[in-house]
Amino acid sequence: MHRRKFLAGAGGLAAAAAAPAVIAQPKIEWRMAASWPASLDVFWGGTQRFAAMVDELTGGRLKIKTFASEELVPGLGVFDACSQGAIEAFHSTPFYWAAKDPAAQWFAAVPFGLNAQGNHTWYHAGGGLKLWEETYAPFGLVPRPGGSTGVQMGGWFRKKIERLADLKGLKMRMPGLGGKVLAKAGAIPMLLAAGQALSALEQGVIDAVEFVGPHDDVKLGFYRGARHYYYPGWHEAGTGLEFTFNKKAYDALPADLRRALDYAALAVSSLMLAEMEMKNALALKRLRSEFKGRVEILPFPADVMRSLRKLSAEVLKDESEKSPMARKVHAAYTDFQQLLRDWGRISEGAYYQLIAG
Amino acid sequence: MHRRKFLAGAGGLAAAAAAPAVIAQPKIEWRMAASWPASLDVFWGGTQRFAAMVDELTGGRLKIKTFASEELVPGLGVFDACSQGAIEAFHSTPFYWAAKDPAAQWFAAVPFGLNAQGNHTWYHAGGGLKLWEETYAPFGLVPRPGGSTGVQMGGWFRKKIERLADLKGLKMRMPGLGGKVLAKAGAIPMLLAAGQALSALEQGVIDAVEFVGPHDDVKLGFYRGARHYYYPGWHEAGTGLEFTFNKKAYDALPADLRRALDYAALAVSSLMLAEMEMKNALALKRLRSEFKGRVEILPFPADVMRSLRKLSAEVLKDESEKSPMARKVHAAYTDFQQLLRDWGRISEGAYYQLIAG
Repeated sequence: MHRRKFLAGAGGLAAAAAAPAVIAQPKIEWRMAASWPASLDVFWGGTQRFAAMVDELTGGRLKIKTFASEELVPGLGVFDACSQGAIEAFHSTPFYWAAKDPAAQWFAAVPFGLNAQGNHTWYHAGGGLKLWEETYAPFGLVPRPGGSTGVQMGGWFRKKIERLADLKGLKMRMPGLGGKVLAKAGAIPMLLAAGQALSALEQGVIDAVEFVGPHDDVKLGFYRGARHYYYPGWHEAGTGLEFTFNKKAYDALPADLRRALDYAALAVSSLMLAEMEMKNALALKRLRSEFKGRVEILPFPADVMRSLRKLSAEVLKDESEKSPMARKVHAAYTDFQQLLRDWGRISEGAYYQLIAG
Repeated sequence: MHRRKFLAGAGGLAAAAAAPAVIAQPKIEWRMAASWPASLDVFWGGTQRFAAMVDELTGGRLKIKTFASEELVPGLGVFDACSQGAIEAFHSTPFYWAAKDPAAQWFAAVPFGLNAQGNHTWYHAGGGLKLWEETYAPFGLVPRPGGSTGVQMGGWFRKKIERLADLKGLKMRMPGLGGKVLAKAGAIPMLLAAGQALSALEQGVIDAVEFVGPHDDVKLGFYRGARHYYYPGWHEAGTGLEFTFNKKAYDALPADLRRALDYAALAVSSLMLAEMEMKNALALKRLRSEFKGRVEILPFPADVMRSLRKLSAEVLKDESEKSPMARKVHAAYTDFQQLLRDWGRISEGAYYQLIAG
């Protein structure tokens, strides 16, 4: 339809006379599996949007069929499936691939680490993406940043947290590095899927749950199991997601299709963060009105944060010693974070103080 | 070269046999003028990157020739030139188009308004871009967000600002809405190009200058004229730039080329912010070391900010009454800002407090 409209334009006619139909070009089909179910609407929306964008950009020459978690491969099986060439692409988060190389964790989120804008700056202007590519090269994979959760919430707690000792023996659903930090503080981190976590919380089998932010958390109903909703998400200040490609499949594409993948990843990343921010703001508004009296939204005590921050530095150091790549990435990340901190303090940090007043 | 590589691949051969050469497709040439000189390297780098990305994405079917300020049209003449069809696109900021419709200013930056992430969320998930399109429709233009400066600095001052009264009679280079707020506080805002501003500051003809952030400000040498460098940029917390297209030219393109323009704008926006953040962080580090003792970096006093914030609300109300579109945009922006403020406070705001400690 658009093509017909174009042909009708004066300039288009002459050019089109010399041009064969676009439809005669080679068509390539890819499969992309996500690590999440379709119910995580912002994440899965990003998965689908990416495929649609690549389709539009390539005039249908590169078709990407998308699969939610478990439809084709298990949610946590996408890395191996893509590495082995069973699928050409996946949408996930490097948070999950600590067992492949501990270095992967730094590209997602580390406790007291970078937020969305910081990660983005690190990936694209601070050398982060190059290190990420180097980390994935042994697995035959090419990573591209693929969205961010923004600053997460700190989780739902049945009882108030007033001092570090309140974490002792606390059973909390928290995966990854955040869980390791909690364990150092004497808590018992648990790995549970969202649905299991809610029923365990409701029955008092566990004491606390963290998941993402207000939008997903309210949808999942965690307020039914705990009334204290803490901020900020010290463990994940902006978890980076990824569009990752099988390197052989990626390298076999003509340059314009490779660029369509690269730039669509950038564009979708950007749109996903906007959508997440908007939906979190709306969900928080709902929590403040509809759930008033049932949910208490409160900050972690400053001294609990100071203690967890110290423990986080220890956990990161331990993790960084598990592989040569992790050591290299940790050093680069730490330098970058140090450089950005001063600027962040007098720009974005001062801005948020300014508008809070 | 890439094409040859593709043809050499096993899968590529069969497909290519049925496919005509990509080079036979229609080629369209556009001209895009920027409002800035090539010396503003992040802005002009974005201009050039956009053209390169569109070239790559379209396999050379849409070629955009870029012109720095004054090369083809004056920097502030790009809106009219594009509206009249003399050029097909421009890279600028809606900051400049208050005389076209005062509503345009809200899409760039308003004092005590949204930062880069807030603007981005407003444009893409909060209805902002739709309003921007509506504002530009009478001029036959299609806007796309095209980068952000991030939080700017508050400017270089020869003397310390300790109370609101210190602004009385102060001659300061500050254009736009920020300048109007200053005028309400008794200062004398001036419109000067960067080069003029520096010599006026050095000679004591003016008392203060604001431009962008550490990267551009240090390059321009403002530290030679004033020692007090204030933060944050209350007047521009993340000025939005724009890639804007002549609507007739845009509508005449086939769908895949229109999408190449749209998604390249998103991708470049995103990369420009990363580059600006990185370069500002590096320039601040230089200010802290190389310029130590010569430059004092300090926050505006809180009560001066409170007073300017009140005056800003008055200026925005006055401006909003100048056109029906400005009234509509101001109301929508204010609602959105109110919605996002609470979430921003407990997410990004709390994050910056956390890492500052």
